[in-house]
Amino acid sequence: MATSAEDIRSPGLYRALLAEMLGVLFLVLVACGACTNVKAQQNLITISVCFGLSVATLVWCIANVSGGHINPAVTIGFLVTRKISIVRALFYFVSQLVGGIAGAAILMGLTPTEYRASLGTTQLTQGVSVGQGFGIEFMATFVLVFTVFATCDSNRNDLSGSGPLAIGLSVAMCHLWAVPYTGAGMNTARSFGPAVIFGGPAWDNHWVYWVGQLLGGVVAALLYDLLFAVNSSVDKLKS
Amino acid sequence: MATSAEDIRSPGLYRALLAEMLGVLFLVLVACGACTNVKAQQNLITISVCFGLSVATLVWCIANVSGGHINPAVTIGFLVTRKISIVRALFYFVSQLVGGIAGAAILMGLTPTEYRASLGTTQLTQGVSVGQGFGIEFMATFVLVFTVFATCDSNRNDLSGSGPLAIGLSVAMCHLWAVPYTGAGMNTARSFGPAVIFGGPAWDNHWVYWVGQLLGGVVAALLYDLLFAVNSSVDKLKS
Amino acid sequence: MATSAEDIRSPGLYRALLAEMLGVLFLVLVACGACTNVKAQQNLITISVCFGLSVATLVWCIANVSGGHINPAVTIGFLVTRKISIVRALFYFVSQLVGGIAGAAILMGLTPTEYRASLGTTQLTQGVSVGQGFGIEFMATFVLVFTVFATCDSNRNDLSGSGPLAIGLSVAMCHLWAVPYTGAGMNTARSFGPAVIFGGPAWDNHWVYWVGQLLGGVVAALLYDLLFAVNSSVDKLKS
Amino acid sequence: MATSAEDIRSPGLYRALLAEMLGVLFLVLVACGACTNVKAQQNLITISVCFGLSVATLVWCIANVSGGHINPAVTIGFLVTRKISIVRALFYFVSQLVGGIAGAAILMGLTPTEYRASLGTTQLTQGVSVGQGFGIEFMATFVLVFTVFATCDSNRNDLSGSGPLAIGLSVAMCHLWAVPYTGAGMNTARSFGPAVIFGGPAWDNHWVYWVGQLLGGVVAALLYDLLFAVNSSVDKLKS
Repeated sequence: MATSAEDIRSPGLYRALLAEMLGVLFLVLVACGACTNVKAQQNLITISVCFGLSVATLVWCIANVSGGHINPAVTIGFLVTRKISIVRALFYFVSQLVGGIAGAAILMGLTPTEYRASLGTTQLTQGVSVGQGFGIEFMATFVLVFTVFATCDSNRNDLSGSGPLAIGLSVAMCHLWAVPYTGAGMNTARSFGPAVIFGGPAWDNHWVYWVGQLLGGVVAALLYDLLFAVNSSVDKLKS
Repeated sequence: MATSAEDIRSPGLYRALLAEMLGVLFLVLVACGACTNVKAQQNLITISVCFGLSVATLVWCIANVSGGHINPAVTIGFLVTRKISIVRALFYFVSQLVGGIAGAAILMGLTPTEYRASLGTTQLTQGVSVGQGFGIEFMATFVLVFTVFATCDSNRNDLSGSGPLAIGLSVAMCHLWAVPYTGAGMNTARSFGPAVIFGGPAWDNHWVYWVGQLLGGVVAALLYDLLFAVNSSVDKLKS
Repeated sequence: MATSAEDIRSPGLYRALLAEMLGVLFLVLVACGACTNVKAQQNLITISVCFGLSVATLVWCIANVSGGHINPAVTIGFLVTRKISIVRALFYFVSQLVGGIAGAAILMGLTPTEYRASLGTTQLTQGVSVGQGFGIEFMATFVLVFTVFATCDSNRNDLSGSGPLAIGLSVAMCHLWAVPYTGAGMNTARSFGPAVIFGGPAWDNHWVYWVGQLLGGVVAALLYDLLFAVNSSVDKLKS
Repeated sequence: MATSAEDIRSPGLYRALLAEMLGVLFLVLVACGACTNVKAQQNLITISVCFGLSVATLVWCIANVSGGHINPAVTIGFLVTRKISIVRALFYFVSQLVGGIAGAAILMGLTPTEYRASLGTTQLTQGVSVGQGFGIEFMATFVLVFTVFATCDSNRNDLSGSGPLAIGLSVAMCHLWAVPYTGAGMNTARSFGPAVIFGGPAWDNHWVYWVGQLLGGVVAALLYDLLFAVNSSVDKLKS
């Protein structure tokens, strides 16, 4: 792992920041775009598949440049397991949030007013309590970050096939459950960007999407790294 | 194959049991969650794809820890073909059933009462006879366990691509047929957990989901292992 | 390539015949099962995805035993390009047709009468002329068999990922177009089996599904083998 | 990279041109076929998945013959980054446009008049401004061509799994957003062919599909090649 001091002097970091920003930008533009609504054509399957394929595609495109986080909950997971430096994590956060806002702004401009719906903002559905919303976002983000860590475990040699696709499919899987309840944020930059641009009701209980997701990411990362990773302490104990 | 005595002293077994429990827990939480229903958004395609992707994702995540069974019908298949010890099989069963109950309980807590539908329990649709339900569960589980064995045949070298995804897609395939008839259990822990938590009509003919599925798993495992596996007896006969 | 005389004495042939029969049996059982209809839950996307995933799954399971044809149009393609012996082709045809009939018969037994719809038989939709139906089946089967040949071209080294999945996705792709017009047979055993069991209107213009599909398979196989294969005559010319 | 003079004398070029023509022909035939409409069976998910799988399948089939562009926006991207010769690019363009027209003509013949809908032509939906349509086509094609370049970056060794599938999924992803707004052309040959055959309203603002797409392809190709490619100038600077 590069230290913060090394990272900050590396030209690779700045390219990675651009990649993270563009990744979130296109994720929000296209997948939140699939939540806008022309003549009721969009529905649960189209939205879920679009988010899943968007994450799969964008991680595929930039994995070698930035690691393909495009999600603060993933970045915080890598931070608490000491796989990236603090400076890199902070810079990633900022890039991701900026990308989310930029993507939502472009989407706003490209969408006729009458078709905007709520511009893909994530909100708790009528009847879902704050505690339930928190739990759903925690669980869904847990699944995503756990999958990311399983995919990025470089000591595993039992997996073949596309890692980015596996990550994207875990996103689609959780959307098929959670979209009707919380909008299935699962990604703070994706929840934050459209809220900044669309405003209004998108801010109600918005903290749920920050705390639930980031906590889910932290717990999933620690659990995988401490217990399930090939080089986890349990494994070292065995040998 | 490790013996029962070796297994019981191995720290790896207990980590595997945790993995199996968490695997079924998240399978039931997310995929049965996709069977609850807010404003009629869920339907056959969303449920089938969610189950398929959930199995693909969770097997991908824990395959190197426990083998990624997350299904008693798979475990019994490995038992009857003598690929795992009796102790391991029994411990897996218990972990899977506990995981199914825990997942359903969490789902119950996270779902507003008015949206629970039947909490993803599996029941025979009106008009489907017990014999038909048994046959459908037998056939669907047969396809799944046969696919698992084809995927795990370490002597095959003709397959590339993701094994967990292939297994998950076989689950989605059978759901697209069987959900409207039996709910497409295909997994005793997934049928049992929600029944324990939701109760009532979910217990009608519940034995079908145990006997049909486990028998399907046993027959598929034996057929593959005795006849189609690369190192099956027929092949040995030829050489 | 084994000669007919060698094939007929090989125990591997008989195992391959069983694999082909079971492959078509489960294809028809599950995917035609997805064409039966309980309370209008099935539709174009569920049927198309089910056929695609069924082919992907079953080819994955038996590819190393029989080559995973499970389709007379594929087998005839391998025959005319001299990749399998005449005896093997004839035996495959019979196994596939028997598998199709058996799958449809089991499906008939497992489906309550009121939900059978037309049991997945393929028929020309009202308004589609015989010539149009012929053309659609020809084109769709062409795409499938061309994809099979591209996947099985052992001299290609540019492809990674799952071959069976690529074949299955070509099936789903053509179903999304052709199901509403011809039922998207694309496989003579799959069109024939349900017709034998369901009878009646399924026999109208049934020859279209034989001639259109088999001809599509022959043309695709010859085109790939003579022109696009890595070791085709054009390539030899270049070197 | 072969020069124009070398290309024009190579038998491989003419085989590649046939592959490009057939690729676009089947893309338009099948995927635009999925936009025709029998009894309202087609919808956003069926159309998007069909386009994605069609691109994945056809690129898979012909990648080793022509590179599998089947899209002028991809070809122009390879041209401006000097990966193919001018002669090859021009010949590809012509083959692709001819393939698009041929595919649309065959589709016209195979589709009963009453089911033709608008034959898969791409048009701006009522309420979408020309600028918005331009932006959507630009962004969607950008995502596709960026994915193609990430997939074809032969210096990356971090990707496993199917490249053609990754490209196809990026197509499906953008369709799930853009179909309701612009028809999600993303491919000039696919927008042009049906317009030639169907005519009429398909020509309104047709330039958007040329300029928006080709410009998106050029910008994506240059951005990837100059900044993100493994051997980009930034990387060279670092070493």
